[in-house]
Amino acid sequence: MLPSKKRLAHIVFESDDKASKRFDVFLLVFILLSVFIVVLDSVSEIHHQYGRYLYAAEWFFTLVFTGEYVLRIWLSYDKRGYVFGFYGLVDLLAILPTYISLFFFASQYLTVIRALRFLRILRILKLTEYVKEAVILKNALRQSRLKIQIFLGSVLTIVLVMGSLMYIVEGPDHGFTSIPRSMYWAIVTLTTVGYGDIAPETEFGQFLASLIMLTGYAIIAVPTGIVSSELTAAKQKTIASMKRRICHHCQVQDHELDANYCRSCGNPLD
Amino acid sequence: MLPSKKRLAHIVFESDDKASKRFDVFLLVFILLSVFIVVLDSVSEIHHQYGRYLYAAEWFFTLVFTGEYVLRIWLSYDKRGYVFGFYGLVDLLAILPTYISLFFFASQYLTVIRALRFLRILRILKLTEYVKEAVILKNALRQSRLKIQIFLGSVLTIVLVMGSLMYIVEGPDHGFTSIPRSMYWAIVTLTTVGYGDIAPETEFGQFLASLIMLTGYAIIAVPTGIVSSELTAAKQKTIASMKRRICHHCQVQDHELDANYCRSCGNPLD
Amino acid sequence: MLPSKKRLAHIVFESDDKASKRFDVFLLVFILLSVFIVVLDSVSEIHHQYGRYLYAAEWFFTLVFTGEYVLRIWLSYDKRGYVFGFYGLVDLLAILPTYISLFFFASQYLTVIRALRFLRILRILKLTEYVKEAVILKNALRQSRLKIQIFLGSVLTIVLVMGSLMYIVEGPDHGFTSIPRSMYWAIVTLTTVGYGDIAPETEFGQFLASLIMLTGYAIIAVPTGIVSSELTAAKQKTIASMKRRICHHCQVQDHELDANYCRSCGNPLD
Amino acid sequence: MLPSKKRLAHIVFESDDKASKRFDVFLLVFILLSVFIVVLDSVSEIHHQYGRYLYAAEWFFTLVFTGEYVLRIWLSYDKRGYVFGFYGLVDLLAILPTYISLFFFASQYLTVIRALRFLRILRILKLTEYVKEAVILKNALRQSRLKIQIFLGSVLTIVLVMGSLMYIVEGPDHGFTSIPRSMYWAIVTLTTVGYGDIAPETEFGQFLASLIMLTGYAIIAVPTGIVSSELTAAKQKTIASMKRRICHHCQVQDHELDANYCRSCGNPLD
Repeated sequence: MLPSKKRLAHIVFESDDKASKRFDVFLLVFILLSVFIVVLDSVSEIHHQYGRYLYAAEWFFTLVFTGEYVLRIWLSYDKRGYVFGFYGLVDLLAILPTYISLFFFASQYLTVIRALRFLRILRILKLTEYVKEAVILKNALRQSRLKIQIFLGSVLTIVLVMGSLMYIVEGPDHGFTSIPRSMYWAIVTLTTVGYGDIAPETEFGQFLASLIMLTGYAIIAVPTGIVSSELTAAKQKTIASMKRRICHHCQVQDHELDANYCRSCGNPLD
Repeated sequence: MLPSKKRLAHIVFESDDKASKRFDVFLLVFILLSVFIVVLDSVSEIHHQYGRYLYAAEWFFTLVFTGEYVLRIWLSYDKRGYVFGFYGLVDLLAILPTYISLFFFASQYLTVIRALRFLRILRILKLTEYVKEAVILKNALRQSRLKIQIFLGSVLTIVLVMGSLMYIVEGPDHGFTSIPRSMYWAIVTLTTVGYGDIAPETEFGQFLASLIMLTGYAIIAVPTGIVSSELTAAKQKTIASMKRRICHHCQVQDHELDANYCRSCGNPLD
Repeated sequence: MLPSKKRLAHIVFESDDKASKRFDVFLLVFILLSVFIVVLDSVSEIHHQYGRYLYAAEWFFTLVFTGEYVLRIWLSYDKRGYVFGFYGLVDLLAILPTYISLFFFASQYLTVIRALRFLRILRILKLTEYVKEAVILKNALRQSRLKIQIFLGSVLTIVLVMGSLMYIVEGPDHGFTSIPRSMYWAIVTLTTVGYGDIAPETEFGQFLASLIMLTGYAIIAVPTGIVSSELTAAKQKTIASMKRRICHHCQVQDHELDANYCRSCGNPLD
Repeated sequence: MLPSKKRLAHIVFESDDKASKRFDVFLLVFILLSVFIVVLDSVSEIHHQYGRYLYAAEWFFTLVFTGEYVLRIWLSYDKRGYVFGFYGLVDLLAILPTYISLFFFASQYLTVIRALRFLRILRILKLTEYVKEAVILKNALRQSRLKIQIFLGSVLTIVLVMGSLMYIVEGPDHGFTSIPRSMYWAIVTLTTVGYGDIAPETEFGQFLASLIMLTGYAIIAVPTGIVSSELTAAKQKTIASMKRRICHHCQVQDHELDANYCRSCGNPLD
């Protein structure tokens, strides 16, 4: 017995009962496996030895995702909205490369597009408990948007000025062949990544580099401090709203954070 | 005069009097020494020169730990629970490699298993003042479990997408031989480790790498902010509970944090 | 119809109506473009191929900025204050190098001075919403000035002592050719940049380096903690002042943070 | 007219009037200069060219510090306490190496001991406004002593276990020649320094290294969070004590943080 179209739409788009949750889990596993195959196929030894099996699996997943894509269009109320929306385009990009490779040479550019399938996981996450926490994180970041912009502006100023200085001080002989390259070095240094592919060799260059490193050390504190203070404020707001809970039976307020029962009448709290 | 079995079990399993504490200290020293020998033995010069002495010491510790293992089984009420539990298995793994090396060639794989002896220290720490603080840290991490999962998910998405992009942009000629290797590079960069074994060489690759570094710089703030806000909340809870202390003599509340005596009646506080 | 001198001064120096804002945006775009040209011109391939066009653009921007400089002098009340102030000198440095290159060989030193044009952006930012947030950040940093000085002092002490030690332990054969170079290495290590251009090779050197790294790991926490606590305090002050808002109609206080209307009389809050 | 012995002791040991402050400043400059000479002298080009002048300066500073040392002994009430105390020993170590170099060959080991002169600066700092802030920082670190020990213990466990694993997985051929060296690599990686002198080359090794890096990324949050929460608590304690200020004229309490005058009677607050 086939489910009705309405029931099917519920299974595909929601995730609040057994069948729809199972659908999400299947989809998650299929996405992860198909991305895993793309990643594996890029290793040349594996490609040479198991390329044929991976190619078969690739087609299997493409056909499954194509079926899912057609199903989603059929089930959508707002078909145009789905097809041209973010998720619709990601779904299309997830299957298109394999079909294109039929007609054109399967270049590695198509590989990367296939890796974008991973973004489809976002849809599944949309429907879970993660959303509430993600909202807190996003709010914290949005609240500190201006502070972070100022911070990034300062970083870019330091990068430009220091990059230009090091271009003069060290020069092309020591790898600082142009200002953009010097700026790349400044970013590598300021973020404490430090590849060492370009490194100052003159005494004065090393002195300047030391300055920029200590600066980096000091200003790494700023974004962390910004996010910390926002999250602390968010946390305290949550705690305050926990304390403000009112017992529905006796109207007593001001319960402990971990209280599950009203301290006055003993009835359970929300 | 030998101690009774009950007394012996107390010495071995508890740590609240002189004898049982001394047992823990001895065990700690023995574990550290035996791990130290394993570590030393892996240095080839030391192995060649002092290998015989280290081998003898190895057998000494193995026999001591074997005795302890048998003792623990004998003293346990729930023998099966001990033998197949985490600590029982770690205790067995701590002695087995040496016996196996009698019959088979002593490969370096056995060395590593012996290094797991270090995990036995966890049992001793279980019985100290560290537990309370460790619980606070663990709670802070557990409370922010969801936030940290979201964070790790974002990191992995960035790593996959950026790794795939750099695989295309830089290609095998510059060390980005496959997507897994590109992802390894992305993790090395995002975590600001930056070995420099693989580094972008094209202009566009360096530009993309700069973006991923600045991203890394920005999101390193997130986990720190999460843990900071949780620990700040935990700290404030402790402070609040300190303030809520009640004098057992006059029932006065709301004492200063560092108060040892009641400000009203002068009697000592808990 | 030309605007009056007073109106012109308003457009140039303020940014609170349409014309003056448009002036700022134009200036911002011109500064960014002119810096971009300086950066591009330092790439030797681009210099060889498009050098003539970049040279022309350079003169175009120089003439525009010269016009702006003259305009600013003419419009200023305090002409001497402007010319010898920070912004006046930056404005002069932004145009001088191109004129000097007419008489002298255009060395790369002039390039860097031209890159300082970027600092002119600071003036435009001065007039925006960023100021309030920047003040909070600056206050947080100023409040923790003493703590940060102590911190930097400790870092320099560690760098000097550790640098001297490593100079002895590793010596010139392993790249530690002098104490200043050893100190450079210590800074590279302590800030977790880690180029790898100089790295310890002896066992004892690696042990000492491990110590300095773990120290670095521990003290990286200090500046972050300082800034976090200051920003948290600033945040709470803002929240407290939000809560203290008084309804102008019924004088009720103590509103929720996100309240836009008085909970007592329903009139809008400030 | 020479100052009395009591006056001289005041100048040397205190720093609360003009003469004693000037003494401190002179001493600070002399210490910095003498350390600077030690650092310069280690650069071989400078040593060969200006070695004679540096040697002369070295003797000048040694004689000055010798005079100061004798003066301090003469002026101390508790002579034995000074000579065998921390500062007395540092003062002795600051002058001894130069005298020793008269009789023995001036080895570079003596150089490092001379660099310890820098520690004498601690005495001068002892007498300033920095002490209060340093106490707050020290308290924050002491309060979180247990948490930091647990943290360091976890780090060492990870370093030992991961170091042993990588020793097996990568082996001597890829630079992981012994467990101590592997542990050095693990510390370099976990602290995100990442020299790149040793780097994993096998696929599985790179996978393990990725795990340890992400772990490092996660646990770098812990010490920062600990210090942040302690400093936030300290900050709030300061704020609370500011608020508790009582006006000495009208006994009104609960003033704003930045209040300098009593809001009730207008008299200045402490």
